[in-house]
Amino acid sequence: MRIKILTLFPKMLEGIVNESILKRAIDKKVCQVEFIDMRGYSLDKHHHVDDTPYGGGAGMVLACDVVDRAILANADAASYKILMTPQGRPYQQKIAKELSLKEELILICGHYEGFDERIRSYVDDEISIGDYVLTGGELAAAVICDSVIRLLDHAIKKESYEDDSFSNGLLEYPQYTRPAEYKGMTVPPVLVNGNHKLIKEYRLKESLRKTFLRRPELLKERNLTEEEVKLLKEIKEELK
Amino acid sequence: MRIKILTLFPKMLEGIVNESILKRAIDKKVCQVEFIDMRGYSLDKHHHVDDTPYGGGAGMVLACDVVDRAILANADAASYKILMTPQGRPYQQKIAKELSLKEELILICGHYEGFDERIRSYVDDEISIGDYVLTGGELAAAVICDSVIRLLDHAIKKESYEDDSFSNGLLEYPQYTRPAEYKGMTVPPVLVNGNHKLIKEYRLKESLRKTFLRRPELLKERNLTEEEVKLLKEIKEELK
Repeated sequence: MRIKILTLFPKMLEGIVNESILKRAIDKKVCQVEFIDMRGYSLDKHHHVDDTPYGGGAGMVLACDVVDRAILANADAASYKILMTPQGRPYQQKIAKELSLKEELILICGHYEGFDERIRSYVDDEISIGDYVLTGGELAAAVICDSVIRLLDHAIKKESYEDDSFSNGLLEYPQYTRPAEYKGMTVPPVLVNGNHKLIKEYRLKESLRKTFLRRPELLKERNLTEEEVKLLKEIKEELK
Repeated sequence: MRIKILTLFPKMLEGIVNESILKRAIDKKVCQVEFIDMRGYSLDKHHHVDDTPYGGGAGMVLACDVVDRAILANADAASYKILMTPQGRPYQQKIAKELSLKEELILICGHYEGFDERIRSYVDDEISIGDYVLTGGELAAAVICDSVIRLLDHAIKKESYEDDSFSNGLLEYPQYTRPAEYKGMTVPPVLVNGNHKLIKEYRLKESLRKTFLRRPELLKERNLTEEEVKLLKEIKEELK
């Protein structure tokens, strides 16, 4: 997979692809990430990319012609072009899975006050990473890169993401590692007893408990198995 | 405000504070951002910070003692300690406003498969930036930094965030800048006529239209004014 990030701040995200799991995935040629400075597509001799808004108001608006030229120069038929904007569709794990199947992603980052509305007509999709406002689209693009790349074959071990929060529609079960006791806090005995059937049941139950207590709306979006219904009933009894 | 980010990858986010609006805010001493490598708090001679999970399973789990020591060494009574986790409360613009009033934030980033459950007992809050899985908490911490710092006094012009998407519970209205015509696409005439009353009404109506079409659930969470109710009725008529 290739990911091209069109931005006004190409250096902002370099650290992210030079560290940890993303760096390993790039080194293993699982994917390629390129930062493209949109300033290079301004025809203005001062490389201006934005201008004041029609109708007045604070801040500067990213111009449509600059973005159009940047897209035309970098996209081809295989490119899936996404505008990063708080007005886009809310990003979720299932969209990460969708995007991980594309051959090439082009992520377009606005900055400053906003961007010219006409830019929307040049893209295939608009994505928001959450209901909050960022100074630009760069962090949103980084979130897409990170969440998509880790799903690619050979980026991380498959078992590592099969148990992730949201992958099965539930929050993840509690994890523990050494020391077995720390400042009076211990590890649940079931996890050290080595009975794999009981461990599996404990984990499913705690996953359900956490989801029920913290994000009950996630349970409604999901078809529960018979075992899950039984465990959830037990949890509700225990909470009474 | 001070923000301390406890991480295993302190270089990952450096680019983010060295660019754009965050750099300006830091240069103007509006806030201070510090990256703290948790590896320094491992007592192990190889600086291990994680270990295999009790009960088996893929990946490594961040150890509670390392994180506890890192927090103890860096927090004081004024610190508000937040664990970055997909299991936390969903981040929203109103939480950004809440956090912008704190004196010091400590953002704790897990990495790899997860972290020891006991770490939850050392923090004041747990936040998730969205229902998707990232390789670590670093990008989530960056999102918190960016969204909070831009709300601090003197970071950006106040008018710049009063019109933001979500600030008033609606998606932002469409923006346009030069050229007035580009490849046959023009700017709505109302924005170039200079009638400020009409421009204001147009913007409110388009803000409502966009929210109604893309995120109708946001309208339900909000008390509409009389004018907004009238405009929304017009929009629904127009869509018939």
